[in-house]
Amino acid sequence: MPHLVIETTANLGTYPKAQALKELAASLTAHPQIPVEADLKIRFVDVTDFVMGTAPEPRGFVHAELRLLSGRTPEAKSELAARVLEVLQRLTPRPAGVSVQLSVEVRDMDRAPYAKARIDPQ
Amino acid sequence: MPHLVIETTANLGTYPKAQALKELAASLTAHPQIPVEADLKIRFVDVTDFVMGTAPEPRGFVHAELRLLSGRTPEAKSELAARVLEVLQRLTPRPAGVSVQLSVEVRDMDRAPYAKARIDPQ
Amino acid sequence: MPHLVIETTANLGTYPKAQALKELAASLTAHPQIPVEADLKIRFVDVTDFVMGTAPEPRGFVHAELRLLSGRTPEAKSELAARVLEVLQRLTPRPAGVSVQLSVEVRDMDRAPYAKARIDPQ
Repeated sequence: MPHLVIETTANLGTYPKAQALKELAASLTAHPQIPVEADLKIRFVDVTDFVMGTAPEPRGFVHAELRLLSGRTPEAKSELAARVLEVLQRLTPRPAGVSVQLSVEVRDMDRAPYAKARIDPQ
Repeated sequence: MPHLVIETTANLGTYPKAQALKELAASLTAHPQIPVEADLKIRFVDVTDFVMGTAPEPRGFVHAELRLLSGRTPEAKSELAARVLEVLQRLTPRPAGVSVQLSVEVRDMDRAPYAKARIDPQ
Repeated sequence: MPHLVIETTANLGTYPKAQALKELAASLTAHPQIPVEADLKIRFVDVTDFVMGTAPEPRGFVHAELRLLSGRTPEAKSELAARVLEVLQRLTPRPAGVSVQLSVEVRDMDRAPYAKARIDPQ
């Protein structure tokens, strides 16, 4: 049930979301800790009203939050974060004059109360 | 102070949000662990740019995150998650040919630094 | 790497986001626990489909989530939450007849797997 949410600020220009979604899905599901490809859910969120610090220089960010059911090892978490960062770093546009920060958080989801269901296609 | 955030993917058709909000609020505030009805805050988030896994079959998801101030029992958490899932499972549209995954995370919010205030109507 | 996400419901009228972003950035970066001003990232999220509890009275909310890399003291967390709440309480519009709730969560981000990179301006 990994969830990945990626925020991108509006000043980065047209983000190649479709390509990023495809490459992130391929890279993450190739990791042994994400054995069921269908369980991985990745989405983008547009950030339009934001500020970074207090200096007037143009800044943008891409921030990813990867949520995993509790129990993964610290090594697996770091590896998965590195895979996310690699794709984002490669695909993030580089608008002239803008300083861009990329970050990836890995967050545990409590396994015990996690509930799920499936609606099969009709 | 429970917070509930529900993401729905755009390929599920018109989601009955108003009805879901009403039923979720009624179901959750009927639980003894949510004693003050006004404290429950539920919102929907539209997911337009997303991918689920790597297979080409049509897939959609509904994902809920329920945030509770720390201190609830594991039993209460599981019961609340089950109530959320019950409503979503009943009200989620079933578009032809789409495989839909529903999930509910329950997350603790650290009680100590949690800050709040109220602006009464004028 | 502090992240601050602020949700505001649509029934609060025009929220002074630009002013709030500026004042929040100034107030938080003045705290010794946020030493690098450029690291602070604040964004607003519009909440359009929501409900608060079950009563028919008009209600709105402003909810902030402050995410800090793990390791801050409880005192620092409470101080930072108070700074966020102070700005929001002062700048939140007071539409007639609407009861408004303000809240601030402080959440730890696991420091070990946190990954980041920087793209310098060209």
